[in-house]
Amino acid sequence: MDFTTHLKLQRALMCRYLMYGDISAKAAHMLGQPAVLDFFAKLIQRVSPKSYQQALAEVQVSQKFLENFCGDQVRFLARSFAVPGNHLGQRSNGYRWPYGPVAIITPFNFPLEIPLLQLMGALYMGNKPVLKVDSKVSIVMEQMIRLLHDCGLPAEDMDFINSDGAVMNKLLLEANPKMTLFTGSSRVAEKLAADLKGRVKLEDAGFDWKILGPDVQEVDYVAWVCDQDAYACSGQKCSAQSVLFMHKNWSSSGLLEKMKKLSERRKLEDLTIGPVLTVTTEAMIEHMNNLLKIRGSKVLFGGEPLANHSIPKIYGAMKPTAVFVPLEEILKSGNFELVTKEIFGPFQVVTEYSEDQLELVLEACERMNAHLTAAVVSNDPLFLQDVLGRSVNGTTYAGIRARTTGAPQNHWFGPAGDPRGAGIGTPEAIKLVWSCHREVIYDVGPVPESWALPSAT
Amino acid sequence: MDFTTHLKLQRALMCRYLMYGDISAKAAHMLGQPAVLDFFAKLIQRVSPKSYQQALAEVQVSQKFLENFCGDQVRFLARSFAVPGNHLGQRSNGYRWPYGPVAIITPFNFPLEIPLLQLMGALYMGNKPVLKVDSKVSIVMEQMIRLLHDCGLPAEDMDFINSDGAVMNKLLLEANPKMTLFTGSSRVAEKLAADLKGRVKLEDAGFDWKILGPDVQEVDYVAWVCDQDAYACSGQKCSAQSVLFMHKNWSSSGLLEKMKKLSERRKLEDLTIGPVLTVTTEAMIEHMNNLLKIRGSKVLFGGEPLANHSIPKIYGAMKPTAVFVPLEEILKSGNFELVTKEIFGPFQVVTEYSEDQLELVLEACERMNAHLTAAVVSNDPLFLQDVLGRSVNGTTYAGIRARTTGAPQNHWFGPAGDPRGAGIGTPEAIKLVWSCHREVIYDVGPVPESWALPSAT
Amino acid sequence: MDFTTHLKLQRALMCRYLMYGDISAKAAHMLGQPAVLDFFAKLIQRVSPKSYQQALAEVQVSQKFLENFCGDQVRFLARSFAVPGNHLGQRSNGYRWPYGPVAIITPFNFPLEIPLLQLMGALYMGNKPVLKVDSKVSIVMEQMIRLLHDCGLPAEDMDFINSDGAVMNKLLLEANPKMTLFTGSSRVAEKLAADLKGRVKLEDAGFDWKILGPDVQEVDYVAWVCDQDAYACSGQKCSAQSVLFMHKNWSSSGLLEKMKKLSERRKLEDLTIGPVLTVTTEAMIEHMNNLLKIRGSKVLFGGEPLANHSIPKIYGAMKPTAVFVPLEEILKSGNFELVTKEIFGPFQVVTEYSEDQLELVLEACERMNAHLTAAVVSNDPLFLQDVLGRSVNGTTYAGIRARTTGAPQNHWFGPAGDPRGAGIGTPEAIKLVWSCHREVIYDVGPVPESWALPSAT
Amino acid sequence: MDFTTHLKLQRALMCRYLMYGDISAKAAHMLGQPAVLDFFAKLIQRVSPKSYQQALAEVQVSQKFLENFCGDQVRFLARSFAVPGNHLGQRSNGYRWPYGPVAIITPFNFPLEIPLLQLMGALYMGNKPVLKVDSKVSIVMEQMIRLLHDCGLPAEDMDFINSDGAVMNKLLLEANPKMTLFTGSSRVAEKLAADLKGRVKLEDAGFDWKILGPDVQEVDYVAWVCDQDAYACSGQKCSAQSVLFMHKNWSSSGLLEKMKKLSERRKLEDLTIGPVLTVTTEAMIEHMNNLLKIRGSKVLFGGEPLANHSIPKIYGAMKPTAVFVPLEEILKSGNFELVTKEIFGPFQVVTEYSEDQLELVLEACERMNAHLTAAVVSNDPLFLQDVLGRSVNGTTYAGIRARTTGAPQNHWFGPAGDPRGAGIGTPEAIKLVWSCHREVIYDVGPVPESWALPSAT
Repeated sequence: MDFTTHLKLQRALMCRYLMYGDISAKAAHMLGQPAVLDFFAKLIQRVSPKSYQQALAEVQVSQKFLENFCGDQVRFLARSFAVPGNHLGQRSNGYRWPYGPVAIITPFNFPLEIPLLQLMGALYMGNKPVLKVDSKVSIVMEQMIRLLHDCGLPAEDMDFINSDGAVMNKLLLEANPKMTLFTGSSRVAEKLAADLKGRVKLEDAGFDWKILGPDVQEVDYVAWVCDQDAYACSGQKCSAQSVLFMHKNWSSSGLLEKMKKLSERRKLEDLTIGPVLTVTTEAMIEHMNNLLKIRGSKVLFGGEPLANHSIPKIYGAMKPTAVFVPLEEILKSGNFELVTKEIFGPFQVVTEYSEDQLELVLEACERMNAHLTAAVVSNDPLFLQDVLGRSVNGTTYAGIRARTTGAPQNHWFGPAGDPRGAGIGTPEAIKLVWSCHREVIYDVGPVPESWALPSAT
Repeated sequence: MDFTTHLKLQRALMCRYLMYGDISAKAAHMLGQPAVLDFFAKLIQRVSPKSYQQALAEVQVSQKFLENFCGDQVRFLARSFAVPGNHLGQRSNGYRWPYGPVAIITPFNFPLEIPLLQLMGALYMGNKPVLKVDSKVSIVMEQMIRLLHDCGLPAEDMDFINSDGAVMNKLLLEANPKMTLFTGSSRVAEKLAADLKGRVKLEDAGFDWKILGPDVQEVDYVAWVCDQDAYACSGQKCSAQSVLFMHKNWSSSGLLEKMKKLSERRKLEDLTIGPVLTVTTEAMIEHMNNLLKIRGSKVLFGGEPLANHSIPKIYGAMKPTAVFVPLEEILKSGNFELVTKEIFGPFQVVTEYSEDQLELVLEACERMNAHLTAAVVSNDPLFLQDVLGRSVNGTTYAGIRARTTGAPQNHWFGPAGDPRGAGIGTPEAIKLVWSCHREVIYDVGPVPESWALPSAT
Repeated sequence: MDFTTHLKLQRALMCRYLMYGDISAKAAHMLGQPAVLDFFAKLIQRVSPKSYQQALAEVQVSQKFLENFCGDQVRFLARSFAVPGNHLGQRSNGYRWPYGPVAIITPFNFPLEIPLLQLMGALYMGNKPVLKVDSKVSIVMEQMIRLLHDCGLPAEDMDFINSDGAVMNKLLLEANPKMTLFTGSSRVAEKLAADLKGRVKLEDAGFDWKILGPDVQEVDYVAWVCDQDAYACSGQKCSAQSVLFMHKNWSSSGLLEKMKKLSERRKLEDLTIGPVLTVTTEAMIEHMNNLLKIRGSKVLFGGEPLANHSIPKIYGAMKPTAVFVPLEEILKSGNFELVTKEIFGPFQVVTEYSEDQLELVLEACERMNAHLTAAVVSNDPLFLQDVLGRSVNGTTYAGIRARTTGAPQNHWFGPAGDPRGAGIGTPEAIKLVWSCHREVIYDVGPVPESWALPSAT
Repeated sequence: MDFTTHLKLQRALMCRYLMYGDISAKAAHMLGQPAVLDFFAKLIQRVSPKSYQQALAEVQVSQKFLENFCGDQVRFLARSFAVPGNHLGQRSNGYRWPYGPVAIITPFNFPLEIPLLQLMGALYMGNKPVLKVDSKVSIVMEQMIRLLHDCGLPAEDMDFINSDGAVMNKLLLEANPKMTLFTGSSRVAEKLAADLKGRVKLEDAGFDWKILGPDVQEVDYVAWVCDQDAYACSGQKCSAQSVLFMHKNWSSSGLLEKMKKLSERRKLEDLTIGPVLTVTTEAMIEHMNNLLKIRGSKVLFGGEPLANHSIPKIYGAMKPTAVFVPLEEILKSGNFELVTKEIFGPFQVVTEYSEDQLELVLEACERMNAHLTAAVVSNDPLFLQDVLGRSVNGTTYAGIRARTTGAPQNHWFGPAGDPRGAGIGTPEAIKLVWSCHREVIYDVGPVPESWALPSAT
């Protein structure tokens, strides 16, 4: 390649920031059309078991994300800084630099939002991504990529691969991308981390907790949020509420009864409850029965398979279920692993604590492995600062309206406490996941006239 | 632990930011005393073979680093941001959050600067570090920790371990720190990355290049910088100049002759040349002989063992050496791995390129593995932007005064292009290496009076 | 007003960030439609004498600006920061806070871009603006506001006033807005600053200079940029090139001849030259004649009234004109005020300097009053750093492609060196002009149990 | 001046950032010596009537401020940013640029902290300041400047003038500094703003309010904070508590009795109460009597001149005084100006409000002119967000430990709601007060080979 050719290439590269601002503006507008919103919502429903509202929300978040990077906002992501050096003509510049060739691997439960946001993030920062979406749902992203092409995305800017995990693993080992973003199960995440020697960013499972504080208020609202957090998408969100720590002040509030009633509104027809793709009914029942062996445990509601359905046996089909386990039992070393095992379905554990048991609750939260989301439902500032200061979950909601789910485009979503942790959605997430720091120190002189050869050192 | 006790603990925690500002101010002042500077410079010289000036510079950089985090500057590292949410009472906050228990492993060549800066960074951000310094040189840091204790560092805030690598590896696997910072050889770095499943930040070897551009100027100055970059500390800096790409315009400038002369000033008495701790003389000679088998190669200067010394055989003792290899030969696949093998000693490869060979130079730079430092010696803005835009080295100097070495406290130093890459020294490096993003979304309400129970979704 | 009512109001306020993201997205899309772009470009041409291309560029910049603040980008403008306090429960938060009621006064030459960008900036940051555009051209903004209303702008969010300056002055003195943004002539700016006791941000006239450095290159390109900088919009930009300092190396390059030829391409038919709204032909001729009295002065080209036109006598009609004045003469105190008097029309002064006269050039630049834009046409890094380091113009272009005009939405445009100086367009400009710093220090406790009443101090 | 000379000058300029880091480190260490702390505390007491603890706190804040800008922290203040441009070779850079010659005028009540922090801020950002401190107290700063000279401050970097206000006013009008920072009375501030056409930053008087919310707790603590806020330094802080709005829930808490008792501990011997420099005893008595004419008003405590003292008649000497005025009466237009007149002495107004009167309280706060500090004493998050969202005071404390006074170096202190408002102390305050935005757009090319002369526009 001669000098002229590569200059032209480079020039093209430079304008990419503006090109991606344009692509985002066009795609945001197109995706915002009612017919297109509806098309994608229904396409998501075809492959991923969730209600129309949940599917639509996924498309809307994706659309808002694209709006955020219209115009100059992609080049603003490439903002660098400079600091004066030690002498005239010297200054140091800190850049966020692309990795180059990168890979993205995303799961079945959010067929549009997760791959689209990560893909665009990778492209915005100047990388060349290869994308693999879980093949059960990859048709959604396949359609989205066509839309992006129509909005100006150059065909050669990214690769889209359809394969099973084994083939993808082989590809990664051979192609050796500089960075691989993986969203999915902990098991695969840990394997990839070892295979790729840590050149990964991970957003894996979460056993997400919610703590209800001592100040009981807005019981109807809190019950509704609990129902949505635990059972929307049939619990198949990595941010789903897995365990609820309830201050005993809530016992007489009727909260559990309200939660039960709300869970019973869910029905297969509108997919407010539906198939579970990675855990069978038998596995869920068995897990429940194991829990019920713990002293003091009981089923609060649900606990039975769904009836009258044609869901294949390889999937799960279970009523929204809550099992109560006493706090002291949870903490016992024999029980702890069992109770905090993530069930990627409509299943939660509920427990209760008294004033002097907050320490135990915090200990339980600390012993859990996956620090993804959490909620502290309280408006007591001292209680909030105490629980927040002693926990490490990446996305933590606090206040009487706190939830565990909700991964909009306007705030960071991702785990904390792990250097491999990935974020999604915000400018910070894009910059931290899809670029690295590079420092360029300009030192153009002049060499002082008084400069004389120093001694060797 | 009861509520009161942990509140007290937490309170103590909060004041830590101020305490570390105080510790830094005191330690900076103490380390800035001439007698203390001198003590540490000489202590470094006892265990690490470098000149007094080089050892002194290491102490001075450490002292300036401490000055940078006096007063409120530690708490300013914990600066967070907040963005309005979707409704009244909601806002999202982005924090840099500590990992908790972490480990630091540092090498022999900078016995004070590397461990001190990383240790303080870990502490500033709220972590609990265990530190292991190469045992040959750990006496320096042992003395520094005593100084820190005297300045107020609580004894329980960090652990200092003296062991060999195998014991440390075992400790890491058992203690399972949330993050491990490793500075040292690529071999160990890759093993650690796999063992710890990627929960690492690495600053490993660098095969660092320097390109002299077409605009020949300040030849004396450039020759001096080359001599220092390649041979200071007997080449035992991870930022040492390993290969020099010289535009043919420099051929007639006398640069190589000047470099030869400068290299010959170096002598064992003042340690401007000295023992090589990790490569024997034989290994260096053998490597040189392998290079000389390449067509067109030749020794430019050096190439012989040091004479009249008592350096033990397990160490290396070699004159400052430069070997010329033709550019086309470097790129041949048989030769490339050989030529770009890092020799952690006073050894560099020199080559030349013509106007139309810049592509080959850039190809060579891209094929190298360790993208640590680089230098582009030119004041031609178009040449600079071309080379900088197509390279990825983490710390890259550009301009007629460019160098490859120099890791002061005022700019980022570290590799780029790898998500595991660590930085050292600056506020950015501290924040990126020693903390992770955490998002706390406050959502305190009020719940709107008009709120009514929505349908399930 | 009862508590419930104002809570509702406040809630509405909070959602405004999202509402303005939506308004911007809709308005950007609408304004981006070819028919709408064309409509506004032609509407601008009806009232402001500029070519179709120049008018179109103004609409396009406005459109891109709106794209920049789609989605969440308005709320991201309200990003605040927080720093830990002195004890548990204390932290300080830095906000950008709105002023409340504010005023915006904008001139005739950019009837869309200036008022629209400032208006939206004021609204984004939460202010309630009253807008007055020069009445000769206010129809453009009147149409734009209708478009904004159609995109969701609440009618009560802003006021639009049509009046002469005297009435507006009275209104300001009575309504006493917290802040007034004024773009226009220096004379009015200074009066307003005194009347409003400094509660203003100003973007007034600029006597903008361009320096051609010693490295002659790209002569055709530089000549074209000079022609556009001096004569586009018939010189009626506050960023227009008013004086050209040419290193003598350029004398033999043919630059001046090329500039002459380019100026002669301009014609009334397509408004590449046209009426001057605030300076009569006579005034320009008189100014020129005064300049020609200076020893060594001469007309380089132009210097005559336009022919064959129907431009009313109250406006100016002049060929693109350049007058040469020797550098030493410019600096004489009798001449300096004359030479650096801004003529808001197609008129520039040209001069030449030798190697040892750079000091005189910089002295001249420093003595000028209005530090708006500047250009340093050179790729010599030492020359650039020298001139940039010793000048204070707010928007300064540097490099061989440097220009004085060009006020896109992607970089700050505004004067420097004056605390009253306003900026336009970028997130920084919006935040600095339309908000002030507010610090809220939360200090929620707990009060330490060990707290005991201290002595009075 | 020849080229070489000015290059040398510029070089010197560049190193100033490091020099000021060194000066700050040395001065911080020197000022931190017990003997020096004590010297300055007692020197302050000689000229400004405050207790030893209050004087000492002033020195300590000054010392901490200097610690904050050791090492590289001054150059970090000069951090700029860069954003990619529209084509290869173009990028825009945003700098904080010095004004050049500036002036600083500071009052009697903080003879060290205010002038020192503003002076260093001005110097850090590269300005050349002239400083005038109220001549009654300028000996303190005169001693401090000597200390700074000893720490390396070049004598020519700043000017120190001792004069009365009239002479200083003349100097400002003639020297025409680019920016003048004024801290002092509103009357002088407004005159200066007009005289200097708004080229000012102001920190003038504050009629500062405190609101006690509905949640009564920590009564002893709150009473103590009220006593300190209202009466420390005999009320001669611009942040002193001028009016207290007490929710009626506090009526039965004993708060007012506790405040009375605390006020009675103050005594002349240790200057916990002392001379008032700008308001005579008669003026305070007269003001009190005017307040007592309002229906329902009464003296809560104090209300009498100090006895047994030798304070000259031109100063005031008054016991700590609180006058109760009913809320409805305060709001009456005849009374409002009287009640909210700032008395720069130990004098406060107290009132009470019921649940449904919060609107009236907020209306009163909004009608006040000087929005300097405020306190909202409550831990109720909804109450806090309501009051904070509807007020504009620059430095606002919120939470059960909230105060109105306290201007440490770690958070912004200054008024809000006025474009002329100045801040003091933090990096943000220094940057906003002592520098302006400058944008430099590099555009070095290459000019594309395909470039062809466009048509004129």
